[in-house]
Amino acid sequence: MTFIHIQEVIPRDGFQIEKNFVPTDEKIKLIDRLSECGLSKIEVTSFVSPKAVPNLRDAEEIVTSIKRNPNLTYVALIPNVRGADRAIAAKIDEINLVMSASATHNRKNVNRTNEESLNGFKEIMEHIKGTNIKVNGSVATSFGFPFEGEISEDTVQHYIDTYLAMGMDSITLADTTGMANPVQVKRLVKKVMKQIGEVPLTLHFHNTRGMGLANVVAAIEAGATRFDASLGGIGGCPFAPGATGNICTEDLVHMLMEMEIETAVELDKLIDLSKGLPELLGREDIPGQVVKAGKVTDLHPA
Amino acid sequence: MTFIHIQEVIPRDGFQIEKNFVPTDEKIKLIDRLSECGLSKIEVTSFVSPKAVPNLRDAEEIVTSIKRNPNLTYVALIPNVRGADRAIAAKIDEINLVMSASATHNRKNVNRTNEESLNGFKEIMEHIKGTNIKVNGSVATSFGFPFEGEISEDTVQHYIDTYLAMGMDSITLADTTGMANPVQVKRLVKKVMKQIGEVPLTLHFHNTRGMGLANVVAAIEAGATRFDASLGGIGGCPFAPGATGNICTEDLVHMLMEMEIETAVELDKLIDLSKGLPELLGREDIPGQVVKAGKVTDLHPA
Repeated sequence: MTFIHIQEVIPRDGFQIEKNFVPTDEKIKLIDRLSECGLSKIEVTSFVSPKAVPNLRDAEEIVTSIKRNPNLTYVALIPNVRGADRAIAAKIDEINLVMSASATHNRKNVNRTNEESLNGFKEIMEHIKGTNIKVNGSVATSFGFPFEGEISEDTVQHYIDTYLAMGMDSITLADTTGMANPVQVKRLVKKVMKQIGEVPLTLHFHNTRGMGLANVVAAIEAGATRFDASLGGIGGCPFAPGATGNICTEDLVHMLMEMEIETAVELDKLIDLSKGLPELLGREDIPGQVVKAGKVTDLHPA
Repeated sequence: MTFIHIQEVIPRDGFQIEKNFVPTDEKIKLIDRLSECGLSKIEVTSFVSPKAVPNLRDAEEIVTSIKRNPNLTYVALIPNVRGADRAIAAKIDEINLVMSASATHNRKNVNRTNEESLNGFKEIMEHIKGTNIKVNGSVATSFGFPFEGEISEDTVQHYIDTYLAMGMDSITLADTTGMANPVQVKRLVKKVMKQIGEVPLTLHFHNTRGMGLANVVAAIEAGATRFDASLGGIGGCPFAPGATGNICTEDLVHMLMEMEIETAVELDKLIDLSKGLPELLGREDIPGQVVKAGKVTDLHPA
C-alpha cells in the first residue's frame, strides 16, 4: 500500500503574495493547528529580506514561537548565507533552496544567473556544515515557463545531479506556473526517480490550468509519494502572469482518500482550517472546492 | 493513436440553471460558432416543459434555426413522449434519455421511480420507431449521489443492459454531482466497456470537487474516447447542494493537446467563445482556468 506524504506550504508560498499581511499570532496559531493534522512537512516561512517579501518579515518570530511536533519537519526557504544564518539561529529543521531551471525565471525570481544561484548554494552548504539542518533542493519551472516554453528534461536532471553532488538531502520538482500535463509528469518523474534512487522526491504542482490533481495521479502512478500543497489552494507565482494557486491541500487529501490511498492526514481538521481562510485573508475567492461542495462522504438527509 | 471525441453541453446543461435567460438569438449564434470548432456532438437544448425549465423554453426555435454542420450530431434531452414528438418535428439527430441510478435523485430530478422512467423510455422507443433519430441513454449519478452515497456498480450495469435491450444506440455514464474519483472511474469504465463492446460510451464528468480532469485521464486509460464538457465549465445540478460545474471544454481540450492526444477541436476558437461568457451570462465567475491563465503554449515576451 502506497503511503503519500502531504507537505503544507500555505505559510510561505501562500501568504507571501497575499495582499494583506497575515498577523504573526494568526500565522502561529494556524501553523500550530496544521501541526496536528498528520502532515509530513510544513514550509513555515522564508528567511528573505523583509524588503523583498514584507509579508514574511516575521520569519524569526514564527520559527521560534510555533510548537514543534516531533513527527513533522519544519522548513524555511532561504536565498543566501545571510538567510542560512537566520535559519540556524532559529533552529529550523530543514532549509529549502530554490533555483529555476528557466534562466529567465531565475533572473526574474532571484535576480541571479543559474551559475550565481549554484555558487550561492555551495556557499550555503559549506556554511551549514556541522549543523543538523537538512537541505531540500528545488528545481522551479521544471515543467516549463511561460516566457520560454518547455524546459529541457536534461537541464532539470543536470541541476538535480548538481544539487546531489553538493550534498543536498532531497529534491523538489516544482511546476511553478502550472505548465505540467499528466503525460509529461509521468515521463519526467519516472526518469528522475531512476536518477536519484532513494533520495526523497517531492512534486510541487500548481492548478493554474486545471491539471493539478490529474498531475498528482500521474506522479503517483510513476512512483512519487511526496506532494506539496497549500490549504485552500492559496498561492501562486507573482512573476508569472495569470498564474493562480498551488494545488489545494484538502482537495488533494480528499481525492487520495476517495482513491483509498493512505496519507495519515485528518481531512476534517484541514477542512475546518480552510473554512477560516476567508476571514484570515480578508477575501472570499478561495480556490479550494471540497470546502464549497462538501466531501463525497458528506451525505445529506433525503 | 487514440482519438477523443469532445461533446459540448453548455446550451443545455449549462444554460438550464443560469440565473438569466440567454436570448434565443445569442444561443443560436453560440451554437453555430461551436459547430465550427471540431466537436463531435452538441447537446443544444431539452424538449421539456417550459414551466419546468423556463431557460430552455425556446427549444423548437433553437433546433430549427441553427445551421447544421453535417459532421456533427445535434442532441436534445427529452423526458417523455410529448418531448419525443417535439424532437421529431424539429428533426433533431439524437435524443438523450436520462434516468438516475439513484432512486432518490431520479425522484428529485424527474419525479418518477426508476420503473416509471424505464416504462417511459419504452414508450419513447416505440414512438420514434421509423424515424432516423438516434437514442443515447444516460445513467445519471453513476458514481454516487450525496443523498445516498455510493451507487452499486451492478445497478449501473443493470440499467445499461436495460437501455440496450430497448434498442438505445449509445450510453452515457454521468457523474452528475462530482462524486467520482480516478480509481473508481478506471474500474467502472473498464467493466462497462467490456459489457457494451462496440456501443459508444460517453463519460460526463463534473469538476465539483476538483477531480474532473483527473477522472478524464483515468477514463482514457481505461479505454474511453468520448467526453461531455461545458464551455467555461458552466453547469451543475440544481438538486445537489453545493454542486458546481461540468468539466470545462477548453480546459479539457487544452490538457489533451498538451498530452498529445488528438481531438480535432480547434482550441483557440473555443477560448474565444469562452471569453464571451461573462457578457453572455451577466456574471464574472466563470470556472474555466485556461481562459484566465492562458495556454501552456502562450509564450510571453521576456
